Amino acid sequence: MPTPDRTLTRREAERLVAEVFQHNGASAQNAQSTALALVAAEIDGQKGHGFSRVASYAAQLRSGKVNGAARPVATRRGSRVDIDADNGLAFPAIDLAICELTAVTPETGIAMAAIRRSHHCGQLGAHVERLAEAGLAALMVANAPKAMAPWGGSQALFGTNPIAFAVPRADAAPLVIDLSLSRVARGKVMAASKRGDPIPKGWALDADGNPTTDPAAALSGTMVPAGDAKGAALALMVEILAATLTGANHSNEATSFFDAEGAPPGVGQMILAFDTAGVVGPGFGPRLETLLSAILAQEGTRLPGTTRLKKRAEAQKEDCVAIPGHLMDEIETMAGP
Amino acid sequence: MPTPDRTLTRREAERLVAEVFQHNGASAQNAQSTALALVAAEIDGQKGHGFSRVASYAAQLRSGKVNGAARPVATRRGSRVDIDADNGLAFPAIDLAICELTAVTPETGIAMAAIRRSHHCGQLGAHVERLAEAGLAALMVANAPKAMAPWGGSQALFGTNPIAFAVPRADAAPLVIDLSLSRVARGKVMAASKRGDPIPKGWALDADGNPTTDPAAALSGTMVPAGDAKGAALALMVEILAATLTGANHSNEATSFFDAEGAPPGVGQMILAFDTAGVVGPGFGPRLETLLSAILAQEGTRLPGTTRLKKRAEAQKEDCVAIPGHLMDEIETMAGP
Repeated sequence: MPTPDRTLTRREAERLVAEVFQHNGASAQNAQSTALALVAAEIDGQKGHGFSRVASYAAQLRSGKVNGAARPVATRRGSRVDIDADNGLAFPAIDLAICELTAVTPETGIAMAAIRRSHHCGQLGAHVERLAEAGLAALMVANAPKAMAPWGGSQALFGTNPIAFAVPRADAAPLVIDLSLSRVARGKVMAASKRGDPIPKGWALDADGNPTTDPAAALSGTMVPAGDAKGAALALMVEILAATLTGANHSNEATSFFDAEGAPPGVGQMILAFDTAGVVGPGFGPRLETLLSAILAQEGTRLPGTTRLKKRAEAQKEDCVAIPGHLMDEIETMAGP
Repeated sequence: MPTPDRTLTRREAERLVAEVFQHNGASAQNAQSTALALVAAEIDGQKGHGFSRVASYAAQLRSGKVNGAARPVATRRGSRVDIDADNGLAFPAIDLAICELTAVTPETGIAMAAIRRSHHCGQLGAHVERLAEAGLAALMVANAPKAMAPWGGSQALFGTNPIAFAVPRADAAPLVIDLSLSRVARGKVMAASKRGDPIPKGWALDADGNPTTDPAAALSGTMVPAGDAKGAALALMVEILAATLTGANHSNEATSFFDAEGAPPGVGQMILAFDTAGVVGPGFGPRLETLLSAILAQEGTRLPGTTRLKKRAEAQKEDCVAIPGHLMDEIETMAGP
């Protein structure tokens, strides 16, 4: 009989996930930071970055591919903060980056955190949102194991290389933009593959660079970039910012974020933070509201992130989060006695 | 009889264009800076940012929509340099930004120039390329008079809001990425309209938000964003960076870059510069070459900007640039005795 879905409060879910990570070798702080991030992603409806990652992270902690005892270290030079994530999980390094950027940016006007020897960093939008909650505008890019070809080529070279951006609002949650540079998320192809369904044409190419509707052929091929050549060019830009400039592995050098084999992925993230104080005229806040009002004045529009905020509000109202039965099975396999 | 095309050396072309601007009220420095930029764009094959702009700029100088006597002023706070372009042409303000960023960035690791009360800034790639020639990585965004709708809407609100990025290379010209966030440049629709040709479906929408192949309907409608919803979200991000954060007019508040009527457009540009020194491991330069070699190892690929460099090399070899007859007519109308 299949395991039934389980419903937990947010705190219970965070505790369960943190215990699994600690049981597999993560320090208390690393386990806690990562558990908070995964549960938050699940609550925001970002299931590809939530409970579905728990067993895989735990297996990587156990095999030593992820350093459970990692202690990220920050080195500041002017407005640039380099962060060595110590081949641990990404979230503790990002916590440190957010802490540093929040301290440095009001003093310098703009600051950058360059994170290397890092891992899967989940939903980027959540990280820039935290900076926006501290009153800063923030832009983040990340690379990831290879999934997209350079334009004209057929072999995977770039990750789906996401971009996220957030700005504070006076009387509302921050505005958050969060997108990957593939036309659709690779997770959608993986889900279709599990279900045995074909995928729509235009999502992916096979290993020879031809359009395919077969999810298996797509997974051994490449994802199509959003906006075709323009998306591929932006993926190269993100690759250079997130990896070449941070001293991280490039996407085509990074091992999988999913399995427990091989060397650490060693990918990179770059976060830029901008002070929003001191903008001439009416100032940043009022001007932003003028712009957002002009968008919403048009029928059929909505602001980016609206669905995420709605899901979050629903989960917070009930203070509960459901773990699907098949993920409970996965998680319990990695849990202690 | 139509005016024949005219071929000039680069210096002759720059002198001719600068003289036209001075005759219509630009200071010698503003005229010179702008002439160099327009001729360089023409030589790079960016005809929408070259000689085709001369008569229009001159008319705006003459009517006072552009302040010919503008003196851009820089104010530094930490790693942020605010530049008031004084409602002049954009290029002198960008020259000042490049000068400031080149001085500040090696000291701070990252720096930003926020330009407001600015105008059309031509090919963004050329500006970031200059920073890359000085050894910096650079990212630039700009807003522009409204041409694209927010996703789900039908009325123009954002400009085609370009993004450019450049990095230095040890033994080659800088790598330059330069793209607008519309699927195709608006200039292509304007050209089709002049020729009386239809445009391909997918380029633009009419004023009701429906796909159109009629260039006139497209020009009173909106351009389709590259990558659909993702391009529209990136256009919003660029709008906030280039205008809300710099204190510039938003795209839907900006007057035309083409006609001589109304208030100055007052748009904005943001340039970020990154020091490439001090990256751990083999360092930025060697790591970049590793990445670019992996791209070029795949059949069918080429690096962004290859066409532009080829056109530039051809023009430099001949040291000549052709001005089409109809543009000579336009320019001579605005020239002095």
